[in-house]
Amino acid sequence: MSQELRAVDWTGSGLALIDQTLLPHRTETMDVRDVDTLIDAIQRLVVRGAPAIGVAGAYGVAVALIQGEREGWTDLQILDAVARIREARPTAVNLMACVDRVMTRYAEGLDAVLEEAAAVQREDVEANRAMGVHGADWLIKKAGVDRPLRILTHCNTGALATTGWGTALGVVRELHARGRVEVVYADETRPLLQGSRLTAWELVQEGIPHYVQADGAAAGTILRGEVDAAIVGADRIAANGDTANKVGTVGVALACADAGIPFLVAAPTTTVDLATATGDDIHIELRGEDEVLEWGGIRMAPAESRGHNPAFDVTPGRLITGLVTERGVLEVSAGELPGERLK
Amino acid sequence: MSQELRAVDWTGSGLALIDQTLLPHRTETMDVRDVDTLIDAIQRLVVRGAPAIGVAGAYGVAVALIQGEREGWTDLQILDAVARIREARPTAVNLMACVDRVMTRYAEGLDAVLEEAAAVQREDVEANRAMGVHGADWLIKKAGVDRPLRILTHCNTGALATTGWGTALGVVRELHARGRVEVVYADETRPLLQGSRLTAWELVQEGIPHYVQADGAAAGTILRGEVDAAIVGADRIAANGDTANKVGTVGVALACADAGIPFLVAAPTTTVDLATATGDDIHIELRGEDEVLEWGGIRMAPAESRGHNPAFDVTPGRLITGLVTERGVLEVSAGELPGERLK
Repeated sequence: MSQELRAVDWTGSGLALIDQTLLPHRTETMDVRDVDTLIDAIQRLVVRGAPAIGVAGAYGVAVALIQGEREGWTDLQILDAVARIREARPTAVNLMACVDRVMTRYAEGLDAVLEEAAAVQREDVEANRAMGVHGADWLIKKAGVDRPLRILTHCNTGALATTGWGTALGVVRELHARGRVEVVYADETRPLLQGSRLTAWELVQEGIPHYVQADGAAAGTILRGEVDAAIVGADRIAANGDTANKVGTVGVALACADAGIPFLVAAPTTTVDLATATGDDIHIELRGEDEVLEWGGIRMAPAESRGHNPAFDVTPGRLITGLVTERGVLEVSAGELPGERLK
Repeated sequence: MSQELRAVDWTGSGLALIDQTLLPHRTETMDVRDVDTLIDAIQRLVVRGAPAIGVAGAYGVAVALIQGEREGWTDLQILDAVARIREARPTAVNLMACVDRVMTRYAEGLDAVLEEAAAVQREDVEANRAMGVHGADWLIKKAGVDRPLRILTHCNTGALATTGWGTALGVVRELHARGRVEVVYADETRPLLQGSRLTAWELVQEGIPHYVQADGAAAGTILRGEVDAAIVGADRIAANGDTANKVGTVGVALACADAGIPFLVAAPTTTVDLATATGDDIHIELRGEDEVLEWGGIRMAPAESRGHNPAFDVTPGRLITGLVTERGVLEVSAGELPGERLK
């Protein structure tokens, strides 16, 4: 992928989002200039991935300020709009954290807000690059083999999920740059297929060999010895290392533990929420039933059936071999807890 | 569901198969009178589920005999046609076993072949009913609670997968008849959605409360304590208890082991293949890539992406709390191995 690809960017007067619901068939950019459109875009997953949502929220404060100016809002109305952006999705901590960070400069006005949002964006790319290096170094050392590695990933954690490089997929890109990737197994990631639509698309752009597989195939692929390591992203990491990520993640972690291969989580330290003690304290978003009952508007299940659609699951820290952040790798299952090491 | 429903039945002159690729939208019966149509129906999953395929294969011998008579085949041509039916799908042992059983009466002529196939069909229903009782008794005893149970299942193992009642879903039906089912979590079962299309349809017919969920949600639902037990079917069970079943099964088993809840496999003893020592000896069918890359003829993944599509996975016997057959329940993970107990 061209390093120019930006899932989220500021155009000078508004927020440009690549509409990820249309990929891989069409690459269209949505120009966001009002708060309701931004909230809708976040909720419909036009923009998704915890770091990308965080940056969208950071610039969202500027969107609210400009819209408020344009439409003659009171300060209270602007603050209310910002609060609604902050709560557009409940699980990823990055959205709240990035909005809160930018709001510390709210009193200084629009330029300061934009400066802070740009800093969030820039630091995200820097953190991704650092994670890529730390994760690749660690994996190559742990693998203890000279051959290229077979990596399994779940959901999308690449340039599209961040502001330009990727978290878990950033580690894969770094390994690929070093000639150390044999193949990537990309779980399709039902119900919204971020794996087959987005991760596969990014892997094609990068020229990285890959297979798309059903989510249910992951455990069998791992237990058959076809995978050297799995690496995923995170939406929120509790102080004890418990990690909320896209639904299906904990199944991958259980299979890695059973097979005795590394299970890595790659996320910037901003995804670690020290105020959340354990995974039990993480609010898991339940999304609409139709996402699992329908396909492209066509009902697959009987009309009378109900759907159960948690967007995330929680992987216990005991199953996480390594947590890759921009600062290095914490060996969580061996007792290096984020709550102690990242204070 | 009406107990009249027959996924596979003999009409007197041909084989009637409910076309399961059309469910739940349309209920159509396919009238099979030649071997190529039968093999195509088995490979396209018009008829699926190890016991149902077994009965279809049993009657397939009669189809071959009648077609041979009609078209003036030599004995060798008929035997070749039977051999092709026997190998239409490689993983389920029932198909081979049922064809072989009926072929022991081949020399006696068509009436004897039909008599033997009808016996296979009748015994399958009887075995299902017995499994239902054994499985329900065992689960109620093990659960040790008075309330109705929350059961997770994967793929379809009901009347559609058998000849009239069901294996794993037969246990659920028996529990429901006793007022002991609170809810069933039906994994949608990608890539072909036997869970959302077929299991959910059967549960609706039976009036059993249920949720359809993405396969990736299963592990999280189990680890969150929302499930009391999981029960699945089998396509082949090795002497040591290792079990091939629909891809995604071993992930459910790993989650049950981690959560400390029972993981049951329900299958007739005909699914146990004592000639197969371990799961490593089971041939896992790799199906076409398009099943994971496309949806309803629409490509979801990029054109350049490859698909990895194993139809089954192998659950190690150590993860199987109970193997329910028509003879009772073997506690496999506790050391009751099929190779010793079912000789």
